[in-house]
Amino acid sequence: MRILGIDPGSINCGYGLIRYPKTPKLQYISSGRIVLPASKSLHARLKELYISLADVIAEYKPDEIVIEKIFFAKGTKTALSLGHTRGVVLLAASLTGLSIYEYSALEVKKAVVGYGRADKNQVQKMVREILNIKHSLSPDSADALALAICHANSKQLICDKHS
Amino acid sequence: MRILGIDPGSINCGYGLIRYPKTPKLQYISSGRIVLPASKSLHARLKELYISLADVIAEYKPDEIVIEKIFFAKGTKTALSLGHTRGVVLLAASLTGLSIYEYSALEVKKAVVGYGRADKNQVQKMVREILNIKHSLSPDSADALALAICHANSKQLICDKHS
Repeated sequence: MRILGIDPGSINCGYGLIRYPKTPKLQYISSGRIVLPASKSLHARLKELYISLADVIAEYKPDEIVIEKIFFAKGTKTALSLGHTRGVVLLAASLTGLSIYEYSALEVKKAVVGYGRADKNQVQKMVREILNIKHSLSPDSADALALAICHANSKQLICDKHS
Repeated sequence: MRILGIDPGSINCGYGLIRYPKTPKLQYISSGRIVLPASKSLHARLKELYISLADVIAEYKPDEIVIEKIFFAKGTKTALSLGHTRGVVLLAASLTGLSIYEYSALEVKKAVVGYGRADKNQVQKMVREILNIKHSLSPDSADALALAICHANSKQLICDKHS
C-alpha cells in the first residue's frame, strides 16, 4: 500500500510517498515540493497547485492520503491564506475517492520524534533515519513524509491491537 | 455577456448570473445557494461545492466570474474555514480559463447601495430593484448578484470613460 502525505503551506506544499507495511521497514518512494510562485495571482497559484497535485496522484497512485490538520494560524491573514491552499489540497484528495486521514502537527511530531515540540531539524533527521534516506530533504517534503509515517504507525497500532 | 458572481461562505455559497450590458437594463438570469452540509466531513463538503459550482458554470456558461475579495474574518478559526471554501471557489473559476475579478464587500455595497456600511436587507432590496426581481432572494444569492452588478458598473464606468 502506498501512503501519500501532503503538507499544505501558503508558499510551498510538500508531498511524500511511502510504502506500507513495515516489512521489514517502511519504504521511501518519493517526495517533493510544489512551489506556489508569489508573482502569480492567487487563483493562478491555486490552479497550479491543483494540477501539480493531480499529477503526483496520477503518477504514484497512492492508496491513502494523509493531510495535516490545522486548528491555528498566526493571525487571520495567515489563516485565510493557509485555508485557501488547504481547501484545494483537500479537494484534490477528495476528488480521487480515496480515504483521507488528518493528523495535527503535534500528533505527527509525537509519532515520528516522540516529542510534540520537536523542531523541523529533528523531524527531518528522524524521517531520514526511519526511511533510510541518504539525501537531504526540504522541510516541506520531510513534514509530508512525517505525516505518512504517522499514519503508517497508527495503522500498525490498530493491526497490533487486532492481532 | 454573462457575468457570474460568487459569494463564498463556509456554510453556504451564493451564486448569481446577470446579462450585461445595460441595454436598457441589466438582466437577471439566475441565482441560487449551494449549501455545504455540516454533517459531512470538510473534504466531502468541498467536493460537493466544487461539483455544484462546475455544474452552474457548465449550465450558464458565464463569460466573466466575480468573487468576493476577503481581507478579514472574525478570528483565525473562521478565517481558516472561509479560506478553505474560497480556495475551492477560486480554483473552480480558475480552471475555466475565464477572466476572474474580485471586489471587497465594501466596494460592492458602495456600488449597489451607495453606502459601504449597508446591511444585508438594503443590499437585497437594491439588487431586486436593479434587476427587477419580484421573488425573494436568499442573502447569499443577493450578495452574489450584488458582486455581478458591481462588476457590471465598473465595466460601464470604463466604457463611459473610453467613449
